Parts: sequence; C-alpha cells; structure tokens
Amino acid sequence: MSRIDIEKKIQSENDRVAEGNRKVFTDAGVFVLNIISSPGSGKTTLLEATLDRLADKMNIVVIEGDISTERDMDRVRARGASGVQINTGGGCHLSSGMVAGVLDDLDLDSAEIVFIENVGNLVCPSTYDLGEDVRMVLLSTTEGDDKPMKYPAIFHEASLAILNKIDLLPHLTYDVEKVEKEIRVLNPDSEILRLSATTGEGMDAWIDWIMAKLREKKSTLT
Amino acid sequence: MSRIDIEKKIQSENDRVAEGNRKVFTDAGVFVLNIISSPGSGKTTLLEATLDRLADKMNIVVIEGDISTERDMDRVRARGASGVQINTGGGCHLSSGMVAGVLDDLDLDSAEIVFIENVGNLVCPSTYDLGEDVRMVLLSTTEGDDKPMKYPAIFHEASLAILNKIDLLPHLTYDVEKVEKEIRVLNPDSEILRLSATTGEGMDAWIDWIMAKLREKKSTLT
Repeated sequence: MSRIDIEKKIQSENDRVAEGNRKVFTDAGVFVLNIISSPGSGKTTLLEATLDRLADKMNIVVIEGDISTERDMDRVRARGASGVQINTGGGCHLSSGMVAGVLDDLDLDSAEIVFIENVGNLVCPSTYDLGEDVRMVLLSTTEGDDKPMKYPAIFHEASLAILNKIDLLPHLTYDVEKVEKEIRVLNPDSEILRLSATTGEGMDAWIDWIMAKLREKKSTLT
Repeated sequence: MSRIDIEKKIQSENDRVAEGNRKVFTDAGVFVLNIISSPGSGKTTLLEATLDRLADKMNIVVIEGDISTERDMDRVRARGASGVQINTGGGCHLSSGMVAGVLDDLDLDSAEIVFIENVGNLVCPSTYDLGEDVRMVLLSTTEGDDKPMKYPAIFHEASLAILNKIDLLPHLTYDVEKVEKEIRVLNPDSEILRLSATTGEGMDAWIDWIMAKLREKKSTLT
C-alpha cells in the first residue's frame, strides 16, 4: 500500500467511527461542538468563560485534546465541567477513534452539551470528523489578519468562526473586516462572532448561539 | 507495510535528503536557520525586522513554507530578501525534499544567511530535519504561558527559543519566568531571547546572536 492509500484508508475508517460516535451522542440527546484553533488562541479560556455562564444551569462535558499534560482538563473541571483529557503523545489532532475510546467515561445521559477541545493546530484537525454536530474555528486577533487564506481548509470546513481577543485590538494592527471577508470567501455560509473571552465582550451572542444550536438539536430528536 | 513502518521510512528518507541539503548549504558557506512556531507568533514580522537591520550589509535568502498563498514571500522580498515560496497544499510541515526541490532556485553563492520559515504549526515540523544549522522555536506572549509543556517536542529539539511580542505584556496575564523555566526543563541547553519584532525591543541581542552563529559557521569552513 502506498502512503496515499493508507491515508485514504485512515480517513475512511475515521469517518466510519465518527458516525458511531454521532449515534451515541444523538441517542444521549447532547449537542457536540468540535473546537479547533492554533495553540494559544484561547480555546480553554473561552470554555472557562462559557462554563461560568452555563455550568449552573446544565451539565456540560468537555473532552480535552492535547499532546501532553492534563492542564486544560484541570482548568475546565475547576469551572464545573466533567470530562476526560486525551493525550495524543505527539499526534497533531484528535481522531474519532480517540473520542470513541473515552465515550464510556463520559456522563452523557445527564449532559446537555459536549465541547471537544482539539489539539492546538490550525492544519491537521481540519478534516477529521469526530462525530460532532458543529465544527468551529477560533482565531485570535493577535495571530494577525492574514490567516484565513493561509490556512484555508479549516475555514472552509467550519460552520462557525470566532474572532477572539478583540480586547487587544487597540494595541494591534489588525483589520477585522478583511479577516471576515476572507472567511466568507472560503465559506459563504460561515457564521462569524467577535468576542473577548477575557473581558466578556461578545460572550452573550456566543451563549445565545450555543443555546439556539442546543434547541435545534433537541427539536430533531422529538 | 504498516503505517508506523511507512512513517519510519519517511523519517529516514527525510534525514538522508537533509544531509544532502546540509552539504549544499555548507559548500556555499551559508548559515541556515529553521524557524518554527504556531500560526501568527510573528515569524514573518521577525524576518522583516531582521532584514531591515541586515539586508543592506549582506545577501539574505528566505525559503517560505505555507499551506497556501505567496503572502509571506511578498513581505520578505519587499524588505530585500531573495528566495522562494513553497506551498505544501495541505501538508503541515516542510520536508527536506521540498527544500531540496528549490535549492537550484536560490542564489546561495552570494548569500550569507538562509532563513527557512516553516509552516505555522507547533507540532508537525518539530522532528523534520531540513538540513539547517540551527532549529529555533518562536513563541509569542499572547499564546499564553502554559505552552512549552503542552508542546514539548519542539522545545526539546530547538537550540534557541524566542519569546516574541513582549510589548503586549502589560495587557496580558503572562508569567515570563514560568515559561523560561519550563523551556529549560525540556532543554537545559536552550538559549532564550525575549523581544518584540514590532517595537524593536530586544532585536539587538537577536542580531548579535545571528552574527555570532554566522562567524561560528564561517570558522568551521576555513
């Protein structure tokens, strides 16, 4: 088998297992979000701020993906989430098999939402379905306003793009309109939200988005 | 062949081609730096600031690695570098074969330094030798102070770590000492520089480091 044949086989096996995960999530009635970004764009900080607003209203499960350490799981657990840390030990993205391997450790029946925080990487995770309802990309203003066209796959795949760290805009040279225009070229249907997980600006619209998606998911189950 | 066998074969083939690149670079008497970071840590901005300080004194070649676009090559060319843009078309790192493929397009004989800006990714490029003299990692303060232990391979492999965007420290919660301590745990021999490519703070020490490495390389050739 050539390398390309093996990659194709891995992708098709990943898709098959992702469908199994999706069935488990749907049977449990949870809404599942796969969050992808560069290292340090603020995925975990966004989850902390989200848990601060939702964890007293519903049970939330987080699956944390990292090369190494339990640091992110410790952070979200401290804000009221349950869940599991997956360490890939070098792998540059989560796979559906890794997620399938921890499903039994999750309390899905009592949960409403599952956040999957992928490995910090704007390239590898783009095309790996984990069984989620929505794949989203987070981009921080400090990463520069030229990124969508340089990393097109994830912006093409993601149905939601969040521009994070807007509180730092006064200290940066950053053209928000240019970034949003590029995202829409790559994916005309993409929703875009601007926020700062640190100051809370824009968080209400993000929480509204989550709650609307949750209602949408529930409505398909009845 | 299993996937692991194929990966091993790819790594060993990459190492073989990297040695060939290294011979070409050494025959030309150039100092070669492989620069690795997340997307948006400031690799290209650092190169621009470096070219502003060195391009009138010597010829500098840049090899730009990106998934897509010629944006970075346009930027460094405007500051006086010659060189080539490599688009991986989805690949998450440069390989020695990609570099070997552009060697004939580089004016190495008149050059003193070759900067290779790898694809923005803190994971995949870590272990791929391109034939460089020094592998370095760039980490920006806006990425958060928990990154070395979460992405250990590149900090273990790199002989120089640069902490960029120190001008933004007053607006962030970031413990510089903690980051430097983690880097030294992963690699006790790593050199560490703090700078801001935007304001110029710390750039003199970086230029001194480059010039010392260039002299060191020249001294091994005579």
